[in-house]
Amino acid sequence: MAPPPDAPFLRACRGERGPTVPVWFMRQAGRSLPEYRELRGEGSILDAIRIPDVATEITLQPVRRYGVDAAILYSDIVTPVASIGFGVDITPGVGPVVERPFTSAADLDRLRPLDPEADLPYVLETVHNVVAELGDVPLIGFAGAPFTVASYLVEGAPTRTWTKTKALMHTDPDLWDALLDRLADQALATLRAQVGAGASAVQLFDSWAGALTPSDYERFVLPASAKVLAGLADLGVPRIHFGVATGELLGLMHQAGAEVVGVDWRVPLDTARSRLAPDVALQGNLDPALVVAGWEATAEGARDVLRRNDGHPGHVFNLGHGVLPETDPEVLEQLVALVHSEGRADGQPSLLDAGTEP
Amino acid sequence: MAPPPDAPFLRACRGERGPTVPVWFMRQAGRSLPEYRELRGEGSILDAIRIPDVATEITLQPVRRYGVDAAILYSDIVTPVASIGFGVDITPGVGPVVERPFTSAADLDRLRPLDPEADLPYVLETVHNVVAELGDVPLIGFAGAPFTVASYLVEGAPTRTWTKTKALMHTDPDLWDALLDRLADQALATLRAQVGAGASAVQLFDSWAGALTPSDYERFVLPASAKVLAGLADLGVPRIHFGVATGELLGLMHQAGAEVVGVDWRVPLDTARSRLAPDVALQGNLDPALVVAGWEATAEGARDVLRRNDGHPGHVFNLGHGVLPETDPEVLEQLVALVHSEGRADGQPSLLDAGTEP
Repeated sequence: MAPPPDAPFLRACRGERGPTVPVWFMRQAGRSLPEYRELRGEGSILDAIRIPDVATEITLQPVRRYGVDAAILYSDIVTPVASIGFGVDITPGVGPVVERPFTSAADLDRLRPLDPEADLPYVLETVHNVVAELGDVPLIGFAGAPFTVASYLVEGAPTRTWTKTKALMHTDPDLWDALLDRLADQALATLRAQVGAGASAVQLFDSWAGALTPSDYERFVLPASAKVLAGLADLGVPRIHFGVATGELLGLMHQAGAEVVGVDWRVPLDTARSRLAPDVALQGNLDPALVVAGWEATAEGARDVLRRNDGHPGHVFNLGHGVLPETDPEVLEQLVALVHSEGRADGQPSLLDAGTEP
Repeated sequence: MAPPPDAPFLRACRGERGPTVPVWFMRQAGRSLPEYRELRGEGSILDAIRIPDVATEITLQPVRRYGVDAAILYSDIVTPVASIGFGVDITPGVGPVVERPFTSAADLDRLRPLDPEADLPYVLETVHNVVAELGDVPLIGFAGAPFTVASYLVEGAPTRTWTKTKALMHTDPDLWDALLDRLADQALATLRAQVGAGASAVQLFDSWAGALTPSDYERFVLPASAKVLAGLADLGVPRIHFGVATGELLGLMHQAGAEVVGVDWRVPLDTARSRLAPDVALQGNLDPALVVAGWEATAEGARDVLRRNDGHPGHVFNLGHGVLPETDPEVLEQLVALVHSEGRADGQPSLLDAGTEP
């Protein structure tokens, strides 16, 4: 029961005119939903992800409530490394914490190749279950990009400065490249398996890539992310590539091999487009904090995003980063309705067809 | 004993060709220096700032050690609000923490006008003492910009999402404007007093402005920062305006009334220049994490910064944010020598004189 190829979300990813502007939200499944908090209770997120019935229900909750145009798999970017026993857990209120951080070549041995069928059977079961329930709505699979996963393994805990990570890449580039190559293989394996199980698109989350200079990104990060994205090309599913504070990296993140570039709220969509070829699809980019500020701020901000997109059919509406826990779900519900009713996906001749049509 | 107007730092701020590229470092006085840690011991930074002998010595330490081209006053952006009893302290390892955060119009009464002579006599004494010791080296005074100070008062503690701050500006813009206006008056008062006591330049730190969309910055932040900067115009000292992740705000931050725009490491200097008029001076922008990674990474990164500046005389070399505590002071010492020996401030006809000379 695959969703039809003309589902609005898939059309927008391909830059094709559709009936409306599709919308979904990063972290739409999560702490902002009372039904999520009720189901999850206490305990590690990683445990919930390991129970397909729970992960399936959590993935479906926001689709039911909001009527979004895509579901996103309930999982985590550290799920693959955790599944092969690297010793990662997610501490509530803190984030991923690593028992023994990655410091030397010996730690490469702790990163054996991922076998998704054997290591992540629960993830694939969740994908199967979700796709069976979703019907016409596409499921987006995802993985953490090699850099962002590496930064967790090297730092050992969330950081604001990424000093250990940057020190490793600059002082031992061979070891860094070997680490990123293994993580690229893992991301590729899990994404291929998710698509094999029914996901209609993928998002590669390089959440913290924006901490890097463009030259460091190009030398130390892009090759591994390009390996992941190139390895998916034959599957024919849209590839979305996202990170925060990546205004200076948008061109490189597209060049890595993505049909859709995710844009955080800092970069107005028209500015983002000016840094990319006119046919690149964009995803974004309402400031998630505006949604917390209430409906008026949300509506005004959403209209500004739509105005700056100017009817370009290659637009997947989203927030500029994940839904914040303090978010009122009713505001998101109204936001979906606004995007569906006011969004234009008619295609601007000035943007799309310049030079090809009279 | 004012420093000469042709001090390299002051020339670069004015965009005038000088003998060398001047360099100083944000947070050059601080935890990376053993002599600082010895002098400070435990206790609140705000207490150390209140003792002119201690603050003077800490301000001078990096000038002696590194031979930088400017000193920066040892103080904190919450010093003014703390001095009028708003109830702010700086928790080591956390940052500014506010006893009773700003939530309503009644809290405006807790923000009476600042009288620098009465409220911050120790700061002015420190400025006097430092200037007397510095001789030819200019002292940079500083203040927190209204938005960044407001964000601390509203959030109550450091944040990564600025949800309360953004909610306040969007849901009660009048109260927000009143708050920013009071903080603008405070910043202006302290900066005028610092210049009156001998500071040769000022830096307005809007550290977290980069969390905002350009349209929110323009509506909710720029007017207050412009009030501060305009209020300094008659003093004739260079005004530097800095924040992190401000790639999309550089034009607006210049427009607010600064001769020098600080650039974080995310935006290559040549990209930053392309977003500004060719005569705007820039400050920056080596990634502070590269300095922690050691000398080779530092030298390579510094040469890239100099190359991208391409001999433009309006360049004050700095890091893209503050010196990190893990920094080895010897690497910074070498960095100053590299900038002084390899930096060109010869002025590129292609950048500066296009259209005015044949």
